[in-house]
Amino acid sequence: MRAIVQHTFGGPEVLRLEEVDQPVPLPSELLVRVKAIGVNPVEPLIRSGRFKLLGEPPFVLGWDVSGVVEHVVPGTSRFQEGDEVFGMPFFPRGAGAYAEFVAAPNRHFARKPASISHAQAAALPMAGLTAWQALAEVADVGPGDRVLVHAGAGGVGHLAVQIAKARGAHVIATASAAKHAFVRGVGADEVIDYRTVDFAEAAKDMDVVFELIGGEYADRSLATLRPGGLLVTAIDRMDAALAERTRAAGFRFAGVSVEPDYVGLEAMAALVEDGRLRPHVGLALPLADAAVAHELSESGRATGKIVLEP
Amino acid sequence: MRAIVQHTFGGPEVLRLEEVDQPVPLPSELLVRVKAIGVNPVEPLIRSGRFKLLGEPPFVLGWDVSGVVEHVVPGTSRFQEGDEVFGMPFFPRGAGAYAEFVAAPNRHFARKPASISHAQAAALPMAGLTAWQALAEVADVGPGDRVLVHAGAGGVGHLAVQIAKARGAHVIATASAAKHAFVRGVGADEVIDYRTVDFAEAAKDMDVVFELIGGEYADRSLATLRPGGLLVTAIDRMDAALAERTRAAGFRFAGVSVEPDYVGLEAMAALVEDGRLRPHVGLALPLADAAVAHELSESGRATGKIVLEP
Repeated sequence: MRAIVQHTFGGPEVLRLEEVDQPVPLPSELLVRVKAIGVNPVEPLIRSGRFKLLGEPPFVLGWDVSGVVEHVVPGTSRFQEGDEVFGMPFFPRGAGAYAEFVAAPNRHFARKPASISHAQAAALPMAGLTAWQALAEVADVGPGDRVLVHAGAGGVGHLAVQIAKARGAHVIATASAAKHAFVRGVGADEVIDYRTVDFAEAAKDMDVVFELIGGEYADRSLATLRPGGLLVTAIDRMDAALAERTRAAGFRFAGVSVEPDYVGLEAMAALVEDGRLRPHVGLALPLADAAVAHELSESGRATGKIVLEP
Repeated sequence: MRAIVQHTFGGPEVLRLEEVDQPVPLPSELLVRVKAIGVNPVEPLIRSGRFKLLGEPPFVLGWDVSGVVEHVVPGTSRFQEGDEVFGMPFFPRGAGAYAEFVAAPNRHFARKPASISHAQAAALPMAGLTAWQALAEVADVGPGDRVLVHAGAGGVGHLAVQIAKARGAHVIATASAAKHAFVRGVGADEVIDYRTVDFAEAAKDMDVVFELIGGEYADRSLATLRPGGLLVTAIDRMDAALAERTRAAGFRFAGVSVEPDYVGLEAMAALVEDGRLRPHVGLALPLADAAVAHELSESGRATGKIVLEP
């Protein structure tokens, strides 16, 4: 099969389309024919060697996939050959989704909602599970909760807004003015232009703040929380001093990473089928153009998810 | 840390206690200090090279563990340092549980029930998830169902009897006469001595038959099923001709493997806390005696689970 292999750390040009062995599924695993692969911001960091999550090259990057079950090893009852599935297999260990096939545990997949394309489904796992695990599992957001989502137009943010809304929250999101219509369109009750308005003045009495931006945003967010409110941040933004300031001010603090989890995938698929969650794809490119996808991702010019199609 | 390493395929003597690097947990993973390791029948098959699930040595065997969370990588909200957990990390890929520490995804673990020992908890994951996935997930056993469990005194069987009973089924189990008291003790409504009685005559109108013995047992079990009844067998016993005969006779057929799954672990932990599920440990040995554990496991002389303790 064809896959994007890299043999050294480096710029996007190290991503090469090569012929490699098709992966072999073990008992309880699926062989999935990949229809679309979601490109995530972590992948250029790994490619370049700035974040050595997969150790040294050679390796095949990629986790977010949507595709069709090509082969079911006997003993798997959740899926049949021909089923459409999506998931994020083996994160944070190597899955190798920039390829024509992946083999992975069936419990790392859920059924793809029929109402969205493979490209949309491939945009959902990593960003969606991040938002789901932060808002549903860690924060347990429920009806009437006041939730502040920073970067509400971002890859995770636009899903976080929809998930919080689907759980009945009152959602305030930050976004630049050009993206307000998009953020309102995905359901935000209030949108703050963080460039012209101090969000710490504009948002008050929040039950939950979800932020992946880091730096002063986390600290300034504390002023928006109600007593006992919860600040949820990404694990790579976690900071012991911030945690201490948060607790000293009478708030709660939690980090979230992202983990393969069919329970979360199924919950999101149900929201998609109900019309309450819609992932936004900015651009689909052929698999061979993985380097272009990384260039665009790193440039910050892309809006919406970049997806590769084998 | 110390671990049982094997550098070649061979007899139990290839299992050597060695000093190896402590595993490093990645984001979303736990580092667990292992208190007990369950030895499963598949492990001597892998050690000897009869079943090359892990490829070529060197490797560290073992999946079933119970222990204490030594380190939580930030971003994991399900557990804290010091929590007691049990699970079956990374099966069927390599976990390396015959060791003082394992590092694995937190979603491969659940909280150890306080009412059982680490040795008992380490006896539960692989055998228990096999029974749980067969009876709860595949067969969806419910109140009033008539369920036949073959080898009801076995490692999987005695848990299958308890799980089927906890779900309200009428359970008939097979066992040799010497083990009838044990099988009744774990809740079987009827016990058949398969050595003196033809179970295919003694059990009738079954909704579900669960068997891991294979050979003629599966075929003879068909006679016990009601029309439309379900035969659940282990994947390594699955046989296309048997599947065809099963379907031709008007019955359903399914295989089950076993997969890491916190949902199943949590369900079993709840049954344990309710006093409805109790794993049976036959023998606990020090980790250094892994070779002895394999000898006993292969001899068939051990009754109940063999557990290793670092």
